[in-house]
Amino acid sequence: MRERSSALIVGTGLIGTSIGLALSQANWTVWLTDSDNRAVRLAADLGAGSATAPPSAPDLVIVAVPPRWLATALEEQANRFPNSTLTDVASVKVQPQADADRLGLGERYVGGHPMAGRELSGPAAARGDLFVGRPWVVCAATGEQSPHVARVRAMVQSCGADIVTISAEAHDEAVAAVSHLPQLMASVTAAQLMSLSDAALSLAGQGVRDTVRIAASNTDLWTDVLMVNASAVRPRLERTIRDLQGVLDALGADSATSSKRAALEEVLVRGVDGHARIPGKHGRPSATYAVVPVVIADEPGALARLLTAAGQAGANVEDLAIEHSPGQPVGLVELFVAHESAGALVRALTEAGWSVH
Amino acid sequence: MRERSSALIVGTGLIGTSIGLALSQANWTVWLTDSDNRAVRLAADLGAGSATAPPSAPDLVIVAVPPRWLATALEEQANRFPNSTLTDVASVKVQPQADADRLGLGERYVGGHPMAGRELSGPAAARGDLFVGRPWVVCAATGEQSPHVARVRAMVQSCGADIVTISAEAHDEAVAAVSHLPQLMASVTAAQLMSLSDAALSLAGQGVRDTVRIAASNTDLWTDVLMVNASAVRPRLERTIRDLQGVLDALGADSATSSKRAALEEVLVRGVDGHARIPGKHGRPSATYAVVPVVIADEPGALARLLTAAGQAGANVEDLAIEHSPGQPVGLVELFVAHESAGALVRALTEAGWSVH
Repeated sequence: MRERSSALIVGTGLIGTSIGLALSQANWTVWLTDSDNRAVRLAADLGAGSATAPPSAPDLVIVAVPPRWLATALEEQANRFPNSTLTDVASVKVQPQADADRLGLGERYVGGHPMAGRELSGPAAARGDLFVGRPWVVCAATGEQSPHVARVRAMVQSCGADIVTISAEAHDEAVAAVSHLPQLMASVTAAQLMSLSDAALSLAGQGVRDTVRIAASNTDLWTDVLMVNASAVRPRLERTIRDLQGVLDALGADSATSSKRAALEEVLVRGVDGHARIPGKHGRPSATYAVVPVVIADEPGALARLLTAAGQAGANVEDLAIEHSPGQPVGLVELFVAHESAGALVRALTEAGWSVH
Repeated sequence: MRERSSALIVGTGLIGTSIGLALSQANWTVWLTDSDNRAVRLAADLGAGSATAPPSAPDLVIVAVPPRWLATALEEQANRFPNSTLTDVASVKVQPQADADRLGLGERYVGGHPMAGRELSGPAAARGDLFVGRPWVVCAATGEQSPHVARVRAMVQSCGADIVTISAEAHDEAVAAVSHLPQLMASVTAAQLMSLSDAALSLAGQGVRDTVRIAASNTDLWTDVLMVNASAVRPRLERTIRDLQGVLDALGADSATSSKRAALEEVLVRGVDGHARIPGKHGRPSATYAVVPVVIADEPGALARLLTAAGQAGANVEDLAIEHSPGQPVGLVELFVAHESAGALVRALTEAGWSVH
C-alpha cells in the first residue's frame, strides 16, 4: 500500500482550513499551524488536520498566510524542512517567486493560486469543496516534470480543482485584467453613488447593481493585493484612464462632431468585443443561451414551482437572473437555456399557466 | 360612464409598443404611428392599438422615438394636436425639456422616462408588463397638479409603473451616476480583455462577469444617450478619472509608503460605502440577507428540487446566485434568505440530504 501524502498547512484562515478539509477527506495526513492559537484549534476541530507539530518532515508545506507575511513564513518553513516542497496560495505570483529566488529555494518552491474564495473569512467559513471545479494556478513551465511540481499538482487534484499551468508573470498579468482592474473600476463607480440623493438612487437598476457588486469586498485585503501587483495593474489602469479620457474628450463642451461620436462608439464597441471573449460555463467558449422571461409572484415556493415546471419540460436551466421590481410583489425571472430547448420550454410553461414573455 | 382615455403613440419600437400593450389592456383607446410601416402593423397585430389615424385629438401623445428624432416629432405632434398633452420616453430629460420650451409647449409637455428595457429591440420584443413595478420618472415639480401632469401620471399608473417625480435636471444627474457612468466603466473594463490570451481569460470569475455584463449593450443607442447627457456625465467622469489617477499614483513605481496605501484604501472604502447606498428589493433599504450555499449537480431539475425543498422549509428565496465551475458537472448555488429563516433552511436542506455549506 502506498504511503499517505502529507502536508503542513501554515495559516488556518478560510483558504488554509478549506485546503486542510479537502486534503483530509482525500486521505492526506495534514498538520496545521497558525500564529493564532484559536484559529488553529478551530480548524483542527472542524477536521482540517492535526494541530500538533509534524513528527517528521511533510512532503509539502502549504503557506496560506496574508501576502505581507508570506516571505517570512516561506523562509521559516524552508529552513525548518530543508527537503519539503513549498507552495503558497497568494493572489499574486511574481513577488512570492522573487522572494523564493532570493531565499535560494530553487525548484522546491512552486507558486499556486486557487481561484476561489468567499465574502467571509476565517476557519469557520472554510469548506472542503471550496475548490471543486475551480481553476487553481500552478506556476510552472508547461510540461515541467519536477517532483516538486508533481506534489503540488497532486495536492490541487486532491482538492478537486482544475490545474491551470502558467508562469508567475502571465498569472499576474491575467489577474490584473480579469480581477484587479474590475475591482478598482467597481469601487470608483460605486464611490460616485455617495453624492446622490435617495430619490436619485431609487432609479438604480440591475445594471449598476451588477457593475458595482464586488465594490463591497474587503478593502484591507484588496489594498494589499493591488499594492503587491502594482506593476501589472499600472499599465492596465493607464490604458483604462486613457480610454476614459478619450470618452471625456468626445463628450467635450464644444459642439458634437461625427468624429467625436465615432471615438465614443469605438470604445463601446471594444467593450462589446471584450465582453464576448469571457469564456462561459464549464470553460467552454461563451454560448449565447436563449432567454425565457417569466413573471412570478414574490412568495415562498414560486421560483421552485417554476423550475420544477422547467425541469418537467426537460430544460436544463443553465443560468438564471432575478430582476426585482421596486415596490411590487412580483419578480421577473429570466431562464437561460440552450436554444434548441427554448421553444419547448416556452410552450410547456405557457400551457402550465406561467406568465411567459 | 366615464369616457375612455386616449393616447397616440408615436414610434412603435420596444418601448412604444410595450406602452400600447399596457394601455390597451388597461382599456385605453390607443392609436399607433411609426415612420416604419412594418413596425406599426406588427405593433397593431400584437394588440398594442390601432394603426389608423386618430379620428379626433387624443388626450395624450406619447413620443417614443430615438433621442435624435425627438425634437422633430414633438414639434410635428404639437402642431397637429394643439390641445393634447405631450410626453416622451427618452432616457435623458434636460434636452427634450429645452426643445419643448423652444417650441413654446409650456405645461403641455411633461417629460417621462420609464426605467425599463430589454437587451432586445423592436415591437416583436414588446411586453405589456414591461413596466410593472419599475420606476417611471415624471418630470414635474412635486405636488404639481396641472391636468397635463395628471394625464401622464394616469398613463404611467395604467402601465403598472411606480411614479418617481423629479426635475429634468435631477433626472439627468441621477442617471449619469446610476446608469451612464456604470455603462462606460463596464465598457472600458471589458475593452481591456481584448488583449488577453485564452489561458488568461480562463481565470475570469464571477466578479469580472458581473462588472462587465452591461458592456454587451447596444453601442449605437448608448453613444446617443451619452452624447445627449454629456453635460451631466462629464463631471462624474472627471471625478472618476481623478479617483483612478489617485489610485495610479498610489500604485506608483517608487517604493510603497503608508500614505500611498491609505490613499488607495480610501478609494476602496468609498466604494464600499457607495455600494451600501443602493436600495434593495421593493425599494426598501438594502437588507443583508443570510447566504446559504448548496452544491448541486448540473442536470435538469436539480435547481428546481433544491428550491422546492427550500419552499417546503418555508423559506422565501430573496435572491439566488449560481456559480459555475469550469470543467466540472456541479454548481454552487447561493440562496439569499432572511436571517431569521436561514437556520431552519439549513437544517431542513441538510436533513433532506442536500450538500449545504
